[in-house]
Amino acid sequence: MPRTRVLTGITTSGTPHLGNYAGAIRPAITSSRDASTESFYFLADLHALIKVTDPARVQRSTLEIAATWLACGLEPDKVWFYRQSDIPEIPELTWMLTCVAGKGILNRAHAYKAAVDRNTAEGEDADAGVTAGLFMYPVLMAADILAFNAQKVPVGRDQVQHIEMARDFGQRFNHLYGEHFTLPEAVIEAQVATLPGLDGRKMSKSYDNTIPLFAPTAQLRKLIMSIVTDSTEPGARKNADASNVFSLYQAFASADETAAMRRAFDDGIAWGDAKQALFERVETEVAPMRERYDALIAKPAEIEAILRDGAQRVRSTYVTPFVTQLREAVGLRDLSKVVVSTGADEKPRTTLPVFKQYREADGRFYFKLVDGERLLLQSAGFDAPKDAGQRVAALKREGRLGDDAQVGLGESVTREEVDAALAALRDAESA
Amino acid sequence: MPRTRVLTGITTSGTPHLGNYAGAIRPAITSSRDASTESFYFLADLHALIKVTDPARVQRSTLEIAATWLACGLEPDKVWFYRQSDIPEIPELTWMLTCVAGKGILNRAHAYKAAVDRNTAEGEDADAGVTAGLFMYPVLMAADILAFNAQKVPVGRDQVQHIEMARDFGQRFNHLYGEHFTLPEAVIEAQVATLPGLDGRKMSKSYDNTIPLFAPTAQLRKLIMSIVTDSTEPGARKNADASNVFSLYQAFASADETAAMRRAFDDGIAWGDAKQALFERVETEVAPMRERYDALIAKPAEIEAILRDGAQRVRSTYVTPFVTQLREAVGLRDLSKVVVSTGADEKPRTTLPVFKQYREADGRFYFKLVDGERLLLQSAGFDAPKDAGQRVAALKREGRLGDDAQVGLGESVTREEVDAALAALRDAESA
Repeated sequence: MPRTRVLTGITTSGTPHLGNYAGAIRPAITSSRDASTESFYFLADLHALIKVTDPARVQRSTLEIAATWLACGLEPDKVWFYRQSDIPEIPELTWMLTCVAGKGILNRAHAYKAAVDRNTAEGEDADAGVTAGLFMYPVLMAADILAFNAQKVPVGRDQVQHIEMARDFGQRFNHLYGEHFTLPEAVIEAQVATLPGLDGRKMSKSYDNTIPLFAPTAQLRKLIMSIVTDSTEPGARKNADASNVFSLYQAFASADETAAMRRAFDDGIAWGDAKQALFERVETEVAPMRERYDALIAKPAEIEAILRDGAQRVRSTYVTPFVTQLREAVGLRDLSKVVVSTGADEKPRTTLPVFKQYREADGRFYFKLVDGERLLLQSAGFDAPKDAGQRVAALKREGRLGDDAQVGLGESVTREEVDAALAALRDAESA
Repeated sequence: MPRTRVLTGITTSGTPHLGNYAGAIRPAITSSRDASTESFYFLADLHALIKVTDPARVQRSTLEIAATWLACGLEPDKVWFYRQSDIPEIPELTWMLTCVAGKGILNRAHAYKAAVDRNTAEGEDADAGVTAGLFMYPVLMAADILAFNAQKVPVGRDQVQHIEMARDFGQRFNHLYGEHFTLPEAVIEAQVATLPGLDGRKMSKSYDNTIPLFAPTAQLRKLIMSIVTDSTEPGARKNADASNVFSLYQAFASADETAAMRRAFDDGIAWGDAKQALFERVETEVAPMRERYDALIAKPAEIEAILRDGAQRVRSTYVTPFVTQLREAVGLRDLSKVVVSTGADEKPRTTLPVFKQYREADGRFYFKLVDGERLLLQSAGFDAPKDAGQRVAALKREGRLGDDAQVGLGESVTREEVDAALAALRDAESA
C-alpha cells in the first residue's frame, strides 16, 4: 500500500522554544516514525523573507531549527528533510500557480485581511505597509504542497484556509492543463498543546515570553523560576488548573507524575518547589537533546551537508521530474519536439489529448477529453470525483471507448477519432 | 568605457507580423549592432503564461519568435539571447522582490486597473476573472530587468509605469539589504511606427487584422490585396496621408521611393497598382529573411540549442553569481559560514558592513554605513542620488574615512572602527 505523504513546513524566523517543542516538534517527530506515512519536513526560509528583513536572523534561525529537529530525533535518512530555498523548482512552480490563482481568493486570506483591517482601523490606506509577499504567501505555500502532491498537511485552525487555497489553485491548474495535482487535505491539530509563556499568555516570540528549548541549564532554571504565579503562600492549597507552572509541567510529565503534582498543588506545595520540580522535569527531557544540539550546532557544515543532500535527493526523486512534466503541460517545452511544417498555415501536432476533470455549478463532477481546443468527449455528471476519476482511468487503460453510456462525443467527432486519441494516451502512459 | 546594458523582452504569445517587424524587431536589431550597448533579448515565456493557457501556442510562438529574430539578423554570439524559463534564478529573484514590493503600488498598475474598471463597469466583482499573474506581472518584469542590472529598457509609453515599479522595488531592496541593484531607466520609443492592419486599425493580433511577417509569398500578396481602401477610381487623385496602403509602403521604402509613391498617389495610381507596388516592396525586404526563417524553423533542435547555449552563458556570466550574492544578502546562506558559539546568548559575526542609500521625506538623498544593527556612519542630505552614490563609491575605494564633512559617526562609534569597516569592504570588493 502506498504511504500517505504528509508535509510540514517550519518558518525559519526565530529560535525554537518549549512551546514549539511540545506543540509541534515532538508530535511531528513521533508521527515521522509512522510506517504508513512518507514525511516531508522543510525549512521554509523563502517564507521567512516575508517577515524577516534581518539576513543574519534568517541564517541563524535556519541553523537553529535544523539542529533542533535533528537533535529532537528527526532521522534525515527516513524522512525527506530539506531547505525550501535549495529547491529552485519551488519558485518556478509558484509562478505557474500565480498564473492560475484567482486574485479574488487571495483578497480573502485571513492574514492579509487582518493587515487591511488594522490599517483601516488606524485610518491608513488599506494596503499601507503590506508587501506583495504577505499577499502572495498562500501561492508559495500551495507550491510547497503541490510540488510533492502531498496528501495531508498538518496545520493549526488558522492555516486551514491556506490548504483550501492550495486545493483551489491545484484544481484550476488541473482544469486547464489536465490532471497533474493531487488535492491536499488539512489535518487539523485540534488538541495542539499551546503552552503558557513566562507571563501566562501563550508562549510566543511576539510576546517575548518564551523559554528557549536549548537554553543552557542555568538559564533554563532562571527562566522557569521567573514564571509569573499568584501570591498563594507555601502550605496553602493551589489551583493546578489555573497555574502556568502546572500546565508546563503537564506538557512534560507522564500521567502518573501529573497526578502526583496535582496532589502536591492540593497539599500546598510552595511555588519555589513547584518550579524546581518543573525545571527538573524539563531538564530531564531536554538535557540529552541539548547535548546533541550543541554538538550539531558546533558543526554547521555538517548540517549544511545534510540539508543539501536532502534537497538533492528529494529533487531528483520528486520535484525535478514533476516540475519538468508541469513545464511541458503549460507549454514551456523543448522546441525540438515540435513537429514542424514550413507552410505557415498548418498547425503542428505537438501534444497528446488530455482528460480534464472539474466540478460544475450543479455540484456534480465531470470530465472531458480535449485535443487542443477540440472537444472529443464529454461526460455526464458524477456524484463523486472518485467515480469520474475511475472512469477516466478505465478509458486510459483500455485505450478505446467501448460501450459507455456516460460519455458523449464532441461535435463532428467520430468514434474512430476518439479511439485513436485514447490509444495514443494509453501508449504514452505505458511508454 | 563600459557598455550600456539594454534589455528587451518579447512575450511568446503570437506569430510575428509586419507591425511587430517594423515597430519593434527591425529597430531593435539595428540597435543591437551599436557598439556602445550590451544587448539582452529574451523570450518572455513566463509572461506568456499569464494570458495564454494553450500550451501548444506558447511552444509554437516561442519557436516562431526565436526563428524570426534570428532570421531578421540577430546575432546570438554578439548579444545575449535567451529564453526566460531557462533561467531558474528569475523566479527566485521574483520571490525576493515580491517580499519587498509594496502591494499598494501593484494596485495602481494600469493593466490591473483596466481589468478592475471593466469588471466594475459590468457590475462584476472588482477582481472577477483576474489572476494573480496579471497582478504580479510587474514584479516578474522587475526581476527580468534587475537580474542583469540593465540600465536601459526600451518600452512603449504604456510600459513606463512598469519600469518605475522596477526602480521602486530595486530601491526598496537596496535600502533593506545594501546597494545591489542599478535602477533601470525607461527609454520611451516615442516614434514607434505603428502600422495599420488590413482593416485600417492598428495592426494587432487582438483585432485579427495582421499580415504575418513570414506568410508565404502568395498569401502575403493575397493579404496585401485585401487591405481596405476607399473607393477612389483609378486616375483620380488619392490622399497618401489618409491611406493605409501608403502608410505600409512608407514603413518599408526609402525616402526617395516614398516620395515617388506620394507623386503616384497625387497622379491617381489605381489601388490595385499601389497594392502591387507595396507587395513588391515588402516582398523584396522580407524574401531573404523568409528563406532563413523557413530554414531555421525546419531545424527546431538548432534553435533550442542556441537558446540553451544563450541561457547557459548568460547565467554563468551574470545571473547565477549575482543571484547568489542576493541570496546571501537576504539571508539564504551557507550555514557552514556562520561563526558559531555554543552559548545561546552570543550573536555570531556573519556579514560585512553595508552601505544603504535612501531618500528621506525632505526629498534629499542620504546614505549610511551599518554593521548589523549598529550605525557606523550617517551622511548629510545630497540633492541628487548620484552625489550620494559617488561619495559611497569613493569611501569604498579609499577604504578609510578621510576628511569628509558630509558624514557623521554613529553613536559611540570610533573613527578607527569606521576605517576598519571601510577597509574590510574595500578588501572584499577587490578580492
